[in-house]
Amino acid sequence: MIPRGLILELIDHPWFQRLRRIKQLGLSDFVYPGAVHSRFHHAMGVFHLMSRAIEILRMKGQAISEEEAEGALIAALLHDAGHGPFSHALENSLLPIEHEAITLRIMERLDAEFGGRLRPAMEIFAGNHPKRFLCQLVTGQLDVDRMDYLNRDSFYSGVVEGSIGYHRLLTMMDVDDGRLVFEEKAGLSIENYLAARRLMYWQVYMHKTCIVAEQMLELLLARAKHLGWTRGASPALAYFIELKEKDGTGKQEEQLDMFGSIDDADVEMFLKMATDAEDGLLALLANGLLSRKFFKVKVSAQVFPAHEVADLREQCIRVFACRVEEASQLVRLSQSAFTPYEPADDEILIRTKTGQVLPASEILSIGHFCKTEQRHFMTFPPGLSAL
Amino acid sequence: MIPRGLILELIDHPWFQRLRRIKQLGLSDFVYPGAVHSRFHHAMGVFHLMSRAIEILRMKGQAISEEEAEGALIAALLHDAGHGPFSHALENSLLPIEHEAITLRIMERLDAEFGGRLRPAMEIFAGNHPKRFLCQLVTGQLDVDRMDYLNRDSFYSGVVEGSIGYHRLLTMMDVDDGRLVFEEKAGLSIENYLAARRLMYWQVYMHKTCIVAEQMLELLLARAKHLGWTRGASPALAYFIELKEKDGTGKQEEQLDMFGSIDDADVEMFLKMATDAEDGLLALLANGLLSRKFFKVKVSAQVFPAHEVADLREQCIRVFACRVEEASQLVRLSQSAFTPYEPADDEILIRTKTGQVLPASEILSIGHFCKTEQRHFMTFPPGLSAL
Amino acid sequence: MIPRGLILELIDHPWFQRLRRIKQLGLSDFVYPGAVHSRFHHAMGVFHLMSRAIEILRMKGQAISEEEAEGALIAALLHDAGHGPFSHALENSLLPIEHEAITLRIMERLDAEFGGRLRPAMEIFAGNHPKRFLCQLVTGQLDVDRMDYLNRDSFYSGVVEGSIGYHRLLTMMDVDDGRLVFEEKAGLSIENYLAARRLMYWQVYMHKTCIVAEQMLELLLARAKHLGWTRGASPALAYFIELKEKDGTGKQEEQLDMFGSIDDADVEMFLKMATDAEDGLLALLANGLLSRKFFKVKVSAQVFPAHEVADLREQCIRVFACRVEEASQLVRLSQSAFTPYEPADDEILIRTKTGQVLPASEILSIGHFCKTEQRHFMTFPPGLSAL
Amino acid sequence: MIPRGLILELIDHPWFQRLRRIKQLGLSDFVYPGAVHSRFHHAMGVFHLMSRAIEILRMKGQAISEEEAEGALIAALLHDAGHGPFSHALENSLLPIEHEAITLRIMERLDAEFGGRLRPAMEIFAGNHPKRFLCQLVTGQLDVDRMDYLNRDSFYSGVVEGSIGYHRLLTMMDVDDGRLVFEEKAGLSIENYLAARRLMYWQVYMHKTCIVAEQMLELLLARAKHLGWTRGASPALAYFIELKEKDGTGKQEEQLDMFGSIDDADVEMFLKMATDAEDGLLALLANGLLSRKFFKVKVSAQVFPAHEVADLREQCIRVFACRVEEASQLVRLSQSAFTPYEPADDEILIRTKTGQVLPASEILSIGHFCKTEQRHFMTFPPGLSAL
Repeated sequence: MIPRGLILELIDHPWFQRLRRIKQLGLSDFVYPGAVHSRFHHAMGVFHLMSRAIEILRMKGQAISEEEAEGALIAALLHDAGHGPFSHALENSLLPIEHEAITLRIMERLDAEFGGRLRPAMEIFAGNHPKRFLCQLVTGQLDVDRMDYLNRDSFYSGVVEGSIGYHRLLTMMDVDDGRLVFEEKAGLSIENYLAARRLMYWQVYMHKTCIVAEQMLELLLARAKHLGWTRGASPALAYFIELKEKDGTGKQEEQLDMFGSIDDADVEMFLKMATDAEDGLLALLANGLLSRKFFKVKVSAQVFPAHEVADLREQCIRVFACRVEEASQLVRLSQSAFTPYEPADDEILIRTKTGQVLPASEILSIGHFCKTEQRHFMTFPPGLSAL
Repeated sequence: MIPRGLILELIDHPWFQRLRRIKQLGLSDFVYPGAVHSRFHHAMGVFHLMSRAIEILRMKGQAISEEEAEGALIAALLHDAGHGPFSHALENSLLPIEHEAITLRIMERLDAEFGGRLRPAMEIFAGNHPKRFLCQLVTGQLDVDRMDYLNRDSFYSGVVEGSIGYHRLLTMMDVDDGRLVFEEKAGLSIENYLAARRLMYWQVYMHKTCIVAEQMLELLLARAKHLGWTRGASPALAYFIELKEKDGTGKQEEQLDMFGSIDDADVEMFLKMATDAEDGLLALLANGLLSRKFFKVKVSAQVFPAHEVADLREQCIRVFACRVEEASQLVRLSQSAFTPYEPADDEILIRTKTGQVLPASEILSIGHFCKTEQRHFMTFPPGLSAL
Repeated sequence: MIPRGLILELIDHPWFQRLRRIKQLGLSDFVYPGAVHSRFHHAMGVFHLMSRAIEILRMKGQAISEEEAEGALIAALLHDAGHGPFSHALENSLLPIEHEAITLRIMERLDAEFGGRLRPAMEIFAGNHPKRFLCQLVTGQLDVDRMDYLNRDSFYSGVVEGSIGYHRLLTMMDVDDGRLVFEEKAGLSIENYLAARRLMYWQVYMHKTCIVAEQMLELLLARAKHLGWTRGASPALAYFIELKEKDGTGKQEEQLDMFGSIDDADVEMFLKMATDAEDGLLALLANGLLSRKFFKVKVSAQVFPAHEVADLREQCIRVFACRVEEASQLVRLSQSAFTPYEPADDEILIRTKTGQVLPASEILSIGHFCKTEQRHFMTFPPGLSAL
Repeated sequence: MIPRGLILELIDHPWFQRLRRIKQLGLSDFVYPGAVHSRFHHAMGVFHLMSRAIEILRMKGQAISEEEAEGALIAALLHDAGHGPFSHALENSLLPIEHEAITLRIMERLDAEFGGRLRPAMEIFAGNHPKRFLCQLVTGQLDVDRMDYLNRDSFYSGVVEGSIGYHRLLTMMDVDDGRLVFEEKAGLSIENYLAARRLMYWQVYMHKTCIVAEQMLELLLARAKHLGWTRGASPALAYFIELKEKDGTGKQEEQLDMFGSIDDADVEMFLKMATDAEDGLLALLANGLLSRKFFKVKVSAQVFPAHEVADLREQCIRVFACRVEEASQLVRLSQSAFTPYEPADDEILIRTKTGQVLPASEILSIGHFCKTEQRHFMTFPPGLSAL
């Protein structure tokens, strides 16, 4: 189905093939054992939805040149190319830059390699293309990326409530004055899409067991960095463990090369090597992650009372004979805030039956999706008990 | 899978088998061609979910006697036995009583026939059984009836957004102080269930084309009754067409017998016979329904302005040379109001992690589901044009 | 998705809309309660697969003109337009001609109505179009009709083993020297398709309970014809009950008109009316069908021994006090023979990796599908017992 | 759903949790990108089907004690515990023993750890349990292992034709004279199961691209062993690379420990490290596997002619300047033979309607599944061209 040429060469390129070795949902398979699908599979899905979107918009009379179509397809394909393994944990502990920036730098490299043929894709990805609807298809509040990952993550996790009617959403798309719009008839489907997004956020992406596993990994990597402990680490992982923050400038290309060779295997191997580290904390965390002996986690809609936290940290010091600052890492507070729909951002646009184009927040029943929900998490080692 | 005995005899009974010949969604297959599943199939589904619910509650330690279980299963099986063909249209035009009342009278007959063995089922169906949770499983704001029909109607219509995670909902059920409760972990699934219920209501059950088809059928039957026109009607359908309201009393058993022999075929045959009725309106409606030439319909969140209605009725009189009162029937106003969750009713109960039992409206994000949404419909014959 | 124009007008035409009121699988929902999908839905599916096939063949470089494409789509849409309700039972008892011939006559009528625009479709349907592959797509040993009904009947009956990989089959299609060919890579999928066809034949289409229900309906209609019993029959059904064989000639148009107004409702209403016929046999059959009190059935790979049949017929005479010839109808022998793949017919063609085109029987492992399997059925009224 | 106790402890045990990190289908995701499901997920599925089977057999009146049920469930859970990463490639190149033997040794260890409580499971797994049907459920020609993996691999690969009606198969199970039997009504489902098994074998498990990837991995590991090249290998992988065959005896426990810590990550990391090995062949193979530059492969039903092989090997020597014996490894012949049903093994037993128990080969249409199909593969490096 994929025509020979630039796109096929990009798919077969090592920068894209590495996504095969990175799980889309990181550690979530601890909770949802089927959720081991790769970022490669997701990227192919986004590519497919983009090709359907282009087909539908052309059928509705939108002029989209071959070059523009290719640009949009490549932007769809590569939109997540900058993701590393276990994204959040690594970004929070080891990597000096975040994945969107890396994606752009990967695109630049590929553009150089393919003689400037990725220009349109880069403009679309960066949101600078004159055909604004192409940018919105790649990055917007209702783009083909989200359509694919909600359905895909729902499918592989088995959380059926997260599935969306992407087929109907695609069919209801059109372009009005250069912007992506949805016909009013799609109203209920859009509301359902936001509901699915919210549900997947809390039920899967922020599932408390996934949170705690991710925090343990982050703690482990930060600890290794703190100790300069790299035994058995792959060269690339060792590079980032040993990277000093002040090294950041001027070594961007080197860092990108190193980044390009890290995937899930580097981290998983390192975890296994750390199980018998002489540092007790490293070993505790590594063993916990491999044998599913997770830290405990409490979830609350409110901030945890200071005395509850203090009590746990004191227990921690007592039980693990650790220092105050270590106790602060081990008994850890975090929070997550989520707004399924952001009326302050570039809004989803609805075209009414009378041809008017209105922002979704004015015409759909989505007021409750504009509210931010917040959850607080307190994680702490097994052996302690919360008040 | 269904053990021999009373339940199997009820399933094979003509009162239950007739549900095979009644489509669950009446005229909706005009819009969703796959939605031709029968009320029989739905009833079997509700029966199945009830058997799963009983199994799960027993596993959680609830004592449910064999007699109670049988009662709940029979109540589940027969809960819709009183539905006639094209339910709303017939109830609004021909039938003197509504389907819940008929269900009870059918149960009484079966109880008599089976020597009083339906008593527990009747208590459960009527909401009088001492084990209140059994009643709530059959009729509540989150009962096995709704679980089945949302998923089934979603599946057969292809409106995927209406599917719910019934498996998870069943697993999260328990009983507390005699009442049905759901564990707090099911919170997002319950919110999704309400969202699915709302979506299915507007997208399928109140789809404007279904509305207009139903109103045409209702109009046709009312017209036939008004004219006393029964040509080609089956004896039972003719009986209800000719029934005078004052006949209602004292002939309940006769009416029930007649009702028991009507199904979709009676109405469909009558439609075909009416296509060449000498009465122009009858013929217009019948031909419209059979050849998919529907009346037009306008939908609005507000009441239609009086002058717009008046204008259409005047056109109607002009075009069809009809009388004022007929024009009022042909240009017809109706409305639908829906509240996905009724905090004033018997609430869905949630048991928190700490064991507290709270009404759903206090603990879940469902405020927006407690609001009533309203849509106004104005239907009018083809050939007229709205302002 | 369906462009305005001739095709949409045909879909909205009464000759096509009547397929909404005819179940694809007749009485099979007695066994598989979900299998109530209509011939309309199947025809739309065949239409869809044809449009995909055309798209794929064009992508592979086949020149298919707009006129040819429209012809193929219409032929796909109307290929079953001549089916009546409960096809086999009616064809065996009442109707003077079979459904393929009726389909052609319906096409002729529509061709006249639409000013000769159905010519290409008729050529394709009749197998006379110069582009032979278009004919093969509509009627062949691996056509879009079979692809749709196997998958659809499998889906709605729940017999999952009958599903086929139609997507892969379509993708592997090409045209070689004017004929439809499949790439060798599709070999296993074709073998699986034949296996699914065989399984569906015996598990669904020839399920013994479906067989017995169909025979009861056939017997009932034949009995009504024999008696000239038409009470409560619709005018069209009465017409065919009273039709004498010698009437056949010269009244073809009248018969077609009558045929066009019969659907499932006519037969179902007639069944209900016959439940209290004065003729014992009519009443027995009608009640049996409505209350699921079926005749018994024995299935065997061999012909039933003469003395076993004789014994049952004697019991029949004794128990029902009927005449010898009636006993022969009530204790009835039939048989079904099926060959999943007919090497003597126009073969499925395979194009090998080296570009050679060979008949499937020479290159695939389908020898066992070329054998004819036979089953014998003996049906007899309840109350008798086989040796 | 899984009760606390021994079974849950086994699931959480490191020996079982490691299966999370081993893909069920090894390198097949190069062809079927969704097929990345783990052996852990499969083992849980087999466990689930076993629990359903026990439930059904008990409902049919078979006495199965709690201890026997637990044994069967544990045997189901652990039946594949001895699989390493990329099973076939590693077993052919590095590991001294095969996975069934390792499974038994793991069970022995766990048995010791849990105080002899795995005895019944071990008897069932080894086929020595007095209740023969329990053994047949775990290992037989129609066992819960095969039921799960056919359906699971079909689902995740997207090869829909491989799905089977496991629900029906389970329902049709019974025990007769201590042996597992299937009711005759399941005949078509069993035939379909064998067809699915055959299709999955050739379409997925022996897909030519999977074959070639596996052979490249095997070649790479054998080469590393030959060279004693372990740079960047994990300690456990290095152990097996350096293991001499004569070391095999007397070090079984040490080997098992090492084996227990290897999973997909060890191999994937090693591949990445080998991409810049100084040995040209190692580097060629590693790069090929990571960038999807596979060797070429020819498939044939016949043995490849000697001169064709010789020609390729000569090219190989010329192009890669390698030695004769290396050319023999690079241009490699292999073959696969498969018999979907082995009438010589413990047969699937069918109970006829009359209660007779017969082997499947006598009563079902499966003659063609008893034939062995053979395919020959010739793989060779890119750059060469076959005659």
